[in-house]
Amino acid sequence: MKPLGPVPAGFAAIDGELAIAGRKASELVAEAGGTPLFVYSADLIRQRVARLRAALPDRLALHYAVKANPFGPLLSLMSTLVDGFDIASGGELGLVTAAGIDARAISFAGPGKRIAELESAVSQGVTINCESETEAARALAIGERLGIAPRIAIRVNPDFDLKGSGMKMGGGAKQFGLDADRVPALARHVIAAGAAWRGFHIFAGSQALDAAAIADTQAQTLALAARLTDQIGAPLPHCNLGGGFGIPYFPGDIPLDLEAVGAALSEQFERLPAAIADTAFCVELGRYLVGESGVYLTEIIDRKISHGEVFLIVDGGLHHQLAASGNFGTVVRRNYPVAIASRFDAELAEEASVVGCLCTPLDRLADKGGFPVAEPGDLVAVFCAGAYGATASPAAFLGQGPALEMLV
Amino acid sequence: MKPLGPVPAGFAAIDGELAIAGRKASELVAEAGGTPLFVYSADLIRQRVARLRAALPDRLALHYAVKANPFGPLLSLMSTLVDGFDIASGGELGLVTAAGIDARAISFAGPGKRIAELESAVSQGVTINCESETEAARALAIGERLGIAPRIAIRVNPDFDLKGSGMKMGGGAKQFGLDADRVPALARHVIAAGAAWRGFHIFAGSQALDAAAIADTQAQTLALAARLTDQIGAPLPHCNLGGGFGIPYFPGDIPLDLEAVGAALSEQFERLPAAIADTAFCVELGRYLVGESGVYLTEIIDRKISHGEVFLIVDGGLHHQLAASGNFGTVVRRNYPVAIASRFDAELAEEASVVGCLCTPLDRLADKGGFPVAEPGDLVAVFCAGAYGATASPAAFLGQGPALEMLV
Repeated sequence: MKPLGPVPAGFAAIDGELAIAGRKASELVAEAGGTPLFVYSADLIRQRVARLRAALPDRLALHYAVKANPFGPLLSLMSTLVDGFDIASGGELGLVTAAGIDARAISFAGPGKRIAELESAVSQGVTINCESETEAARALAIGERLGIAPRIAIRVNPDFDLKGSGMKMGGGAKQFGLDADRVPALARHVIAAGAAWRGFHIFAGSQALDAAAIADTQAQTLALAARLTDQIGAPLPHCNLGGGFGIPYFPGDIPLDLEAVGAALSEQFERLPAAIADTAFCVELGRYLVGESGVYLTEIIDRKISHGEVFLIVDGGLHHQLAASGNFGTVVRRNYPVAIASRFDAELAEEASVVGCLCTPLDRLADKGGFPVAEPGDLVAVFCAGAYGATASPAAFLGQGPALEMLV
Repeated sequence: MKPLGPVPAGFAAIDGELAIAGRKASELVAEAGGTPLFVYSADLIRQRVARLRAALPDRLALHYAVKANPFGPLLSLMSTLVDGFDIASGGELGLVTAAGIDARAISFAGPGKRIAELESAVSQGVTINCESETEAARALAIGERLGIAPRIAIRVNPDFDLKGSGMKMGGGAKQFGLDADRVPALARHVIAAGAAWRGFHIFAGSQALDAAAIADTQAQTLALAARLTDQIGAPLPHCNLGGGFGIPYFPGDIPLDLEAVGAALSEQFERLPAAIADTAFCVELGRYLVGESGVYLTEIIDRKISHGEVFLIVDGGLHHQLAASGNFGTVVRRNYPVAIASRFDAELAEEASVVGCLCTPLDRLADKGGFPVAEPGDLVAVFCAGAYGATASPAAFLGQGPALEMLV
């Protein structure tokens, strides 16, 4: 039997069934109109934000990285909880403005911004995190054409990365941001050109569970921001320190010690270099804010024995949960937290694999895990489905189409 | 410099530009209305079908696996070229019937068929490739309720796999099909229940480049079909021998020796066991029919140097070409065939990485390949984009949306 990932805190059984935000999985499915269904718990998101506010310095603003989950009702909720939004495309800009979010609370990063996307962002007053000199030139030209001083920050490619992170976004040659040594010249140029200078975006990596590594990266980020600001010779209004706060997905993953991260950053803030003493800071979090709040519910269609092994075949699959299938940026497949939602407090009684409905061997949501005996009609829950689920999966594959989504 | 995969045959330069079906890439982009754009060449598909018809025994029918590429105009073209269609969902059933394809030329495989999908398929006369006893029972019950004799085949989980295949669909415990030793009992049951008995679907693997391995698998498949037919004691009307014919994607890949596969199968057909002497046979091909006919065209938005490395940042990415980014079922990332379409006959002059517009380090379409010097506005071509491209990628990721598609 292979271990399953740890079920996040905040989920309990009611009448033997998994409950999300105090409501039974079967009720949620009935209300949504079927499966597969993503359910996001507003309560768990609020609790997470409250814990972040308590642990992190008051001075630090909290931004939401929309790419993690752009579901409309969830964006509306976030607009009541966080201080800013980071987008990665014109499509995401449309989603956040549709959710009523003020464009001036939005910053736009991404290595390949199209002209039309830049025009839309500049005209609305979104901060452009420029990724190259040429992109800055395009943003300035658009501002001139529109008669608007574009709000410009520079995304910095730091000379360090976030140790132990799932994805390295800095350190060495990267498509993201401008190499640090070229930042001062560009900053002076955009300031001289009359742009509204917004500062730095420094994102060194994501999905780290090691508080010391995050604290170390934040310290290096602050030192880099101070050094670059000295070289620029103009005040730094704002600095996005990136994110990197990971969540436990896999067996043995230890949750991030958030309080340790907060304590270390508070210490840093108490002895900031003069160059950035008055700078406003934020962290940009996506997965850490919403990942553990989401559950993917899918119904068992068939129960099959092949060569003595049990397969629970569900009506969902990798077309909604690519990362859980182990096929998105992972080398070694490990199990996400998965459970039989309709028998959530039942004893484990057999080894079974949960496979999706797609006609491909890649479509496996749990490999040889321990489960109670489940039958067609039972609901399966895949946890940690709140981030990089619905939109990070090939929904149209094999003619399937998107899952339902609801915020409760 | 890292090698790039081999550009498929059939593509040449006109006025220095990549031409597809005799038309320049820039013209196709203008006609389609922009990039990113998938272009599929009807000529190359016709040539591939003609080569298959010439190489394979006349007795062997040719089926198209819709999952490879369900683009409507392409399905209409295929309806003039092949003998049958294999679908994997009710969604795909809707797509093939919309393309005017006769439901009686369609068979439906997939481990997790929902009741509504079975009802739709049974009522239209689609052959159900049953994957379990319980699924067969559901199909029979639906037939009884509708007053229709359902067309039923059994998908067999063979006791062998296709050696060297990219994806193993048989051999050992699998979610696909019924273990071979349970097939005779189920076949006798469905025949006795009054179903229209359609025979077997035996799919051992996919994406193999070794003709001998495919020939060996086909021989084993025929032997298995004969043995099971003897055990059933009723004639076998039809047998789907599966597919498995691979295409070269990566440096060093040698194209499949199709003629060797055809010669071996012809020999097999000349000495078929009595039990299956009158059986109709087909192969089910997807990738091999359409994969090399397709090109993904995307425009360079930025050219960036970071720590001395060149990055060509395009307006497409893994949201349309997940497999080319190395993030879909591959362990070691290797380069697909990629070229600068607008400088197709120019000499290679530098090492560059082609990265997509997504704000994630996973979004890399070519890693440190050799290219002519390219600039913003140039078009990049990713080849082998005809199968498992548009629909096998997370189109909504980071707010991007689907690519354009055209058949020329």
